[in-house]
Amino acid sequence: MKHPQRIEFIQRKLRRKKLDALLVSQAHNRRYLSGYSAADHDIGESSGVLLIPARDKPVLLTDFRFQIQAEQEVGDMKVMLYPKGLLALLKTLLPDLNVQTLGFESHYTLHSVAGKMEETLEEQNISLHPLTGFVEEMRLIKDEEEINKLRESVLLNEAVFEELYQQIEPGQTEIEIALAIEATMRINGAESPSFATIVATGKRSALPHAVPGNVKVKKNKALMIDMGLVLNGYCSDMTRTFVPKKPTKKYLKIHRLVRKAQLAATEAIRAGVSASSIDKIARTIINDAGYGKQFGHALGHGVGLAVHEDPRLSSKNRKHLRAGMIVTVEPGIYLPNWGGVRLENMVVVREDGCELLNTNTTWLDI
Amino acid sequence: MKHPQRIEFIQRKLRRKKLDALLVSQAHNRRYLSGYSAADHDIGESSGVLLIPARDKPVLLTDFRFQIQAEQEVGDMKVMLYPKGLLALLKTLLPDLNVQTLGFESHYTLHSVAGKMEETLEEQNISLHPLTGFVEEMRLIKDEEEINKLRESVLLNEAVFEELYQQIEPGQTEIEIALAIEATMRINGAESPSFATIVATGKRSALPHAVPGNVKVKKNKALMIDMGLVLNGYCSDMTRTFVPKKPTKKYLKIHRLVRKAQLAATEAIRAGVSASSIDKIARTIINDAGYGKQFGHALGHGVGLAVHEDPRLSSKNRKHLRAGMIVTVEPGIYLPNWGGVRLENMVVVREDGCELLNTNTTWLDI
Repeated sequence: MKHPQRIEFIQRKLRRKKLDALLVSQAHNRRYLSGYSAADHDIGESSGVLLIPARDKPVLLTDFRFQIQAEQEVGDMKVMLYPKGLLALLKTLLPDLNVQTLGFESHYTLHSVAGKMEETLEEQNISLHPLTGFVEEMRLIKDEEEINKLRESVLLNEAVFEELYQQIEPGQTEIEIALAIEATMRINGAESPSFATIVATGKRSALPHAVPGNVKVKKNKALMIDMGLVLNGYCSDMTRTFVPKKPTKKYLKIHRLVRKAQLAATEAIRAGVSASSIDKIARTIINDAGYGKQFGHALGHGVGLAVHEDPRLSSKNRKHLRAGMIVTVEPGIYLPNWGGVRLENMVVVREDGCELLNTNTTWLDI
Repeated sequence: MKHPQRIEFIQRKLRRKKLDALLVSQAHNRRYLSGYSAADHDIGESSGVLLIPARDKPVLLTDFRFQIQAEQEVGDMKVMLYPKGLLALLKTLLPDLNVQTLGFESHYTLHSVAGKMEETLEEQNISLHPLTGFVEEMRLIKDEEEINKLRESVLLNEAVFEELYQQIEPGQTEIEIALAIEATMRINGAESPSFATIVATGKRSALPHAVPGNVKVKKNKALMIDMGLVLNGYCSDMTRTFVPKKPTKKYLKIHRLVRKAQLAATEAIRAGVSASSIDKIARTIINDAGYGKQFGHALGHGVGLAVHEDPRLSSKNRKHLRAGMIVTVEPGIYLPNWGGVRLENMVVVREDGCELLNTNTTWLDI
């Protein structure tokens, strides 16, 4: 779907909900609906919002710093600046557009900002309606064009890993490897990493979210690399754990158990099954082997414009998977003072199964 | 001040405001008060919260993924996990601690999250009190230990620039230079860049927030580099604009005008003057030369644990500067289809003037 069709879809939804307009503040939602690719440095430092009237043309509102970029990226869409801040502009713009009921993204608006907005707009007799997931619901299902972009992102991420893997030598530090990975990503066309690359060696791989340190890789210790990149806006996310030279028996046992859980869960993914049932398949295998407490996170998460998005493959998510969703499958076992193993692939949910986006399983089947 | 003293300061403030406890969700505030250094990947993906009872010991609440890191970093402070989510834990923990009035960070809590929290805690007869800047107010003024850390951050940032400057050759791309800068930062001990490094050449330097691209540096065109790093938690932020070989007359004119505005504003900074008056000094010089509309951002901002924090040196901020504040001074002129010049230093506000943290002005006085 092109941006104008997405906008029309949102406008129909607004009219059904009897809302005059929607204010889109979340950066990925903005990009999904307009093509405007600026990120927000922080939720307190917005690069703009997209105003979508139910019965009028959308407008991208931003400030001086992003004017040129916005105009280049949004095609025919109008761009307006708010030199005196967003609220000052909305105060005059909304009445001009006859907006009396305004939906906003409650899950991406600060409590303090919503409070001020409510106060200001009340004076204009405009009522605010908190919404959650209004745009994200649309983003859950990827069309084939998006799936292709996600596949390209996964393939580039794999290629970067392959290239770097050849160069890893015991004695290099975690930081050096992480930097080489991120540089290779960007030199090969990635916009950025999709999250801070994790490189964790030995015991440190027991920290599921380790920050790379000045720690040297050892030839017979586990090395966990969790990496992803953004290509054409779409994210990839992949974890490989391996031992540079010779794995111990214990490592092999844990690795094979994690891989078994991953394969069984992947096998079961298809449209119509619940997310929690997939999590349960992997969790039961790890539980039965006595490591249930050492697998403390959910099995997976959606990936798209955001590296972490719905649906979550977790014990709490009873919703059914639908064709076109893209999720990670990433069981892990973490043993304090020993290390951890996590293996992560990305798959597309299809009507009768799932399609693996990763193409190289050399690192998984050992 | 050490963490326990900072906690005591907050506790006294809570008692004065008749609040039983404060929930600290903002990552820098958490770090400032506890030493726990995990960042939040996104506001929707918290790495934990710090609960500070007015009359009891503080507790760091986090999840499985960050347990080991949290326990290593917070010293004597208690760490508790929330396997069923933060709200489920608060529901039992707050009554145990006799908390009936709970302050929360309204400016770092999502509207949707605050709504759910209110609903849940109401059942326990706990009232929620939105606060803004409760901890940030304390962070405004840096003590000498913090100033030293900020100075070290600035010095390392300058050293990285010096090293890279030697290697810049026409023909290199913006991305290559940005990557080399960020790699040099981390190899020299920085935790990370403090923001995505900006390298913009020629016309592209007219975009104040340009993303580095596959664009080659040319020997007679302006090159703008805006870079910063995090060292021991504290940020630096510096912009240098220069021409690799020979600047044009027009470049020299614009550069010298920006530098003049920077020097005049810096000269006027001291405790007791308003932030807006400093902005005005720089803006008047640029206005009078006919480029007022091309200087579309504020003159500067505070820097500390966050790379952008209060106080803002802007026309809107009438508050007075106080000794121990640290701000950037960064006037800029941006001419579409030509390019831009921004020069940025960091200074400490002192009683009778200001102290420049940058030590090398070779790039500024041309």
